[in-house]
Amino acid sequence: MPRRHRGVAPVGGAGGLMLPFARVTLIGLGLIGSSLARAVRATMPTVRLTGYDADPAVRETAVRIELVDDVADSAGTAAIDADLVILCVPVGAIGPAAAELADDLPADAVVSDVGSCKAAVARALAEALPGRAIVPAHPVAGTEQSGPEAGFATLFHGRWCILTPEAGTDATAVERVAEFWRRLGATPEVMTPEHHDRVLAVTSHLPHLIAYTIVGTASDLEEVTRGEVIKYSAGGFRDFTRIAASDPTMWRDVFLTNREAVLEMLGRFSEDLASLQRAIRWGKGDELFDLFTRTRAIRRSIVEQGQDDPAADFGRSHE
Amino acid sequence: MPRRHRGVAPVGGAGGLMLPFARVTLIGLGLIGSSLARAVRATMPTVRLTGYDADPAVRETAVRIELVDDVADSAGTAAIDADLVILCVPVGAIGPAAAELADDLPADAVVSDVGSCKAAVARALAEALPGRAIVPAHPVAGTEQSGPEAGFATLFHGRWCILTPEAGTDATAVERVAEFWRRLGATPEVMTPEHHDRVLAVTSHLPHLIAYTIVGTASDLEEVTRGEVIKYSAGGFRDFTRIAASDPTMWRDVFLTNREAVLEMLGRFSEDLASLQRAIRWGKGDELFDLFTRTRAIRRSIVEQGQDDPAADFGRSHE
Repeated sequence: MPRRHRGVAPVGGAGGLMLPFARVTLIGLGLIGSSLARAVRATMPTVRLTGYDADPAVRETAVRIELVDDVADSAGTAAIDADLVILCVPVGAIGPAAAELADDLPADAVVSDVGSCKAAVARALAEALPGRAIVPAHPVAGTEQSGPEAGFATLFHGRWCILTPEAGTDATAVERVAEFWRRLGATPEVMTPEHHDRVLAVTSHLPHLIAYTIVGTASDLEEVTRGEVIKYSAGGFRDFTRIAASDPTMWRDVFLTNREAVLEMLGRFSEDLASLQRAIRWGKGDELFDLFTRTRAIRRSIVEQGQDDPAADFGRSHE
Repeated sequence: MPRRHRGVAPVGGAGGLMLPFARVTLIGLGLIGSSLARAVRATMPTVRLTGYDADPAVRETAVRIELVDDVADSAGTAAIDADLVILCVPVGAIGPAAAELADDLPADAVVSDVGSCKAAVARALAEALPGRAIVPAHPVAGTEQSGPEAGFATLFHGRWCILTPEAGTDATAVERVAEFWRRLGATPEVMTPEHHDRVLAVTSHLPHLIAYTIVGTASDLEEVTRGEVIKYSAGGFRDFTRIAASDPTMWRDVFLTNREAVLEMLGRFSEDLASLQRAIRWGKGDELFDLFTRTRAIRRSIVEQGQDDPAADFGRSHE
């Protein structure tokens, strides 16, 4: 087993002209699953797409909007002739969903997912599907909306997709999944599931936790009404409400699953907040000014690296 | 002095056809001052606009881009024949700026400002300009960008502008300032400075404090590099960096000036965060799910009331 620096290794190789997969099955047709369906249609139109969702209403919508070629009645039926199965369900449901289709999964199929936590998910997949080619994945992309009608084909454009295969996973399977994501406009990157979980704890899970908390705090005050909070939200608060409108089931599962890393990052955040609180209480303007200047530079780098809109105010329309 | 429910009263009256002011002076030509200049030009083109900024480089830019009719060399010269003077400087600089122009201010001129804290600012203005018509104002609008070139004419469209005149302020002066903001596309609302400071502590100051903190926390980790934080910021973190890129001087002054209300709201936030931390540690999924469902409703109201973009992801382009 090769050692990897900081748990990170680049995924090499250009894709060639052959499609990495010909028959793709999506289990779970929410924001990410339905974006995948649209993105595959747009970039690999000859791929045969099969979909399944545990919710009959979602399946009905998928049929009505012609999201995939076939909507199956069970996870097993959906997987039966796939060469790639992607589980697009909340992280707490990935293990059970994998177990449900295990008996029907073709021997040479590759299994992947799109979950926001990787160590626990990798364990659950390995347990449900022993001996199978498993390449867990996490496209770092999304919006605050949910459901099969919220997806769109360009969601993964310019985004990173982190792959966390176990050491010893068939290299061809890893490269095929990497190429699949490249075709959708994303850039694949391999790291260990443990390192992924720490990185995402700070870039995604902690921000969501903070946003959910402040929106909760603001809606429970006595001296400021909820109407006032909504009315004057353009002062900054509204930014947090977007993230805090994300899917409750998905995020409950994330916090329960990536508990250790989230609690560690939260501990650091609380320390820093206490120190800022102290600076305000004692009127230490220089300390505040220094921090506020440093944080500005981070924003600049994010915009320079194409990870956010260069336009002011996220490019919100001001008409 | 009439009692006001929760410190809030509507500003009545339609504007009529006469312009509320004919000669407007802007002291401070940053994002808000320069947006005001552009908005006045767009909506009240016959108004004579004079500008001043303490920074010679900003004055030079203002001349070059023809932001106003006249760029003055001192605050006093700028105020000398104004019928409205608006101080658009960081809240810590409002008192000194008012004192600087006091001797040159015409007797019948109305003085206003755009500061994010109102109780301390109202006191500073009353002290520097005794006996004058003072109508402190706070347009709840802005972006993360700064400087005379960052402003734009539609910044105040559909936003609220809070006026906090002392009881006993000439009602005509209040109504003229209210009408001025209506012409710029904003909706004026009157409340006490103390109530304003509590409302904005939660809808604006606390969100900024939290954003600055988390961006600081994320950039100081050992096990996750700054490069990784930037790279994977689309998972949620990038939203916070926008707010944390706001003007450092402005925000240092806000936290030092509205200290009591900010510390109180911060205390509540920390309590709520500790309780969520506990729920995660003990695996209380239902508690998380309940909060995450409640916060979603707040977002919906903000969008319904036109205080944010209805498009997913703030309408960011995904190309």
